[in-house]
Amino acid sequence: MSDIDLCPRFEAAVGLIGKRWTGLIVEVLLKRPLRFSEISQAIPQLSDRMLAERLKELEAAGIVERHVYPDTPVRVEYSLTAKGRDLAPVMDALHQWANRWMLVPTHSAP
Amino acid sequence: MSDIDLCPRFEAAVGLIGKRWTGLIVEVLLKRPLRFSEISQAIPQLSDRMLAERLKELEAAGIVERHVYPDTPVRVEYSLTAKGRDLAPVMDALHQWANRWMLVPTHSAP
Repeated sequence: MSDIDLCPRFEAAVGLIGKRWTGLIVEVLLKRPLRFSEISQAIPQLSDRMLAERLKELEAAGIVERHVYPDTPVRVEYSLTAKGRDLAPVMDALHQWANRWMLVPTHSAP
Repeated sequence: MSDIDLCPRFEAAVGLIGKRWTGLIVEVLLKRPLRFSEISQAIPQLSDRMLAERLKELEAAGIVERHVYPDTPVRVEYSLTAKGRDLAPVMDALHQWANRWMLVPTHSAP
């Protein structure tokens, strides 16, 4: 083992959480359970196809749960599992870093 | 503003830090300044072309610094700036999550 070997668990976590859009999807679901359209509205640059793909991955990884409510019309909501909610400290730490170091991107409203 | 609007700074940070390989590059540089070949050895699945691209992006973002030592042969090392080192709490939080929830991937040595 060299002093710069990576921890396999950490590497696997970065591979999962570090995927494009995943961080933002987890961030909006930390607020509350949401319907597909609500997640899509919160992340407008994310295509529906990619959102569907990421939600499937996150479900398979046990980070997101899909709830079907037999209303008329049927209502489907996505929420974080305990494993997903446990990512809150990671998001909080990134929020603090962003507030300290990132400028507000010019293309977005002040 | 809806209750699920994303903070622009946070979004920009996820876009930067969330890029494929960036998390692992920051993680190994948190240990100590490293030469290109040492980073490449620590992350074998990462191609030299992609590593060079990510290091350029991280330099432009003020997260990584490149030091040229006029030895013979010339020695080039990469290190984190204060902005880069300030990502340590994000990596620590992800380490804790990974240790709690991720299994050791079967393809890696125990």
